[in-house]
Amino acid sequence: MNWKARLLLLDGLMPSLGDDGRLAWGTLADAAEDAELVFLGLDRSDGGEKPCFAAVPGEGDASPRMANPQLWSLMATMEPGDLALYGGARSITDWHARHRFCAQCGAPTSIAKGGWQRGCESCGAQHFPRTDPVTIMLVEHDGKLMLGRGKGWPEGRFSALAGFVEPGETIEEAVAREVFEESGIRVHDVSYISSQPWPFPSQLMIGCHSHALNTDLTIDETEMAEIIWYSREEVTAALDGDGPFVAPPPHAIAHQLMHWWISR
Amino acid sequence: MNWKARLLLLDGLMPSLGDDGRLAWGTLADAAEDAELVFLGLDRSDGGEKPCFAAVPGEGDASPRMANPQLWSLMATMEPGDLALYGGARSITDWHARHRFCAQCGAPTSIAKGGWQRGCESCGAQHFPRTDPVTIMLVEHDGKLMLGRGKGWPEGRFSALAGFVEPGETIEEAVAREVFEESGIRVHDVSYISSQPWPFPSQLMIGCHSHALNTDLTIDETEMAEIIWYSREEVTAALDGDGPFVAPPPHAIAHQLMHWWISR
Repeated sequence: MNWKARLLLLDGLMPSLGDDGRLAWGTLADAAEDAELVFLGLDRSDGGEKPCFAAVPGEGDASPRMANPQLWSLMATMEPGDLALYGGARSITDWHARHRFCAQCGAPTSIAKGGWQRGCESCGAQHFPRTDPVTIMLVEHDGKLMLGRGKGWPEGRFSALAGFVEPGETIEEAVAREVFEESGIRVHDVSYISSQPWPFPSQLMIGCHSHALNTDLTIDETEMAEIIWYSREEVTAALDGDGPFVAPPPHAIAHQLMHWWISR
Repeated sequence: MNWKARLLLLDGLMPSLGDDGRLAWGTLADAAEDAELVFLGLDRSDGGEKPCFAAVPGEGDASPRMANPQLWSLMATMEPGDLALYGGARSITDWHARHRFCAQCGAPTSIAKGGWQRGCESCGAQHFPRTDPVTIMLVEHDGKLMLGRGKGWPEGRFSALAGFVEPGETIEEAVAREVFEESGIRVHDVSYISSQPWPFPSQLMIGCHSHALNTDLTIDETEMAEIIWYSREEVTAALDGDGPFVAPPPHAIAHQLMHWWISR
């Protein structure tokens, strides 16, 4: 046991925060005897090199972020570096917890390569943590921005449309298909803006901008509760916390994309 | 059984080409009695609406594309529309073949939602086809382009460096980490160029450009056989089939990125 090693303290998949509001750390002695440990990297913050680990919890959680308001509140208080570290650790420990068996043959798998792989001793298959690319897109027409409220979202909360990239698609094709499926709108001139990892459970959010050919909405009511075209003034007011809708919080890429749009 | 439905004929995961060099199609009667069928979409090419399917083969294939020179040759002769359709079909049927069991509990799973999902009857987990985001990047310094030859690649064949986006990373962070790990080079000003699905087995290739801060290589010899800085003239000659190295073929995103670079 490396006495210098640090263990990220988690309550299942939830972060543990200390009195200073920062992520709490322990030592490897705080992990269960039979815990699977994932290597997170080296902490060089105090001049030394301390290996950092997280333990795989008993159960994973594939539910979307909206399903956990307590976590959502905690995340709003965390500082950016802690948020990024927690996000990466949550994503990979959750993946291990939900992948204890081989998808190819059904036999148990075991952790390998410091937690960045699992191996099947029965059929030899190697399994790697998954990261799902998701497009999230601004759709613009005549100075207005199309924003939607998903089914089950709180009243008044709007964000950019988003959807998984499917096998066989480019990023630009995924944006066009997803916008058309959810809103009936055809887009052109799709461009990439920025990306963000999103650990609920393991998305890579790919933020794009596009132009709509039309504004007549045909809303997919299985996915969306409302879709509305908002003016620059309305989006600006919402980002300031005083608009006609509730905008996504600052740590979400949708907020950053909307900020990029009003700042151009 | 829908007599209008079409079945993409595959030999395992290999494409079947007709005498005209196009993908060969049959009817659902050509599928095995107990075959799992994946819905590929509607064919509207002759004015009607024919549903198109592919059957899940007995075994999948997680090996990289380079491991199959016969497929590589076939792909070079296929027309772009067929290549895209085959790629998507290969990716998803291969995923089914390698995911017949539940990663969460080890029980058998069954195909659902027209083949875009698998469900576990034992624990209720839903499983979705995976698409792995991979960055592939041009690294430029002082008018030269850094290209590499992977371990096990044929002598003389060079391409852009590439690597999987890991949980917790942005696209830009993945580019910088991967370039540093493989070459020892630090990059800045990473920008997105274009993307391409790549069905070996299910990547989303995310093509980027970046600038190097230095040119002194520290090659990761577990991954790369050689890394060389090539001039614009050398890259141009290679894309014309007459250069100091063998360039990737036209249907690969690396070729398109290199073409973008010399055309600027």
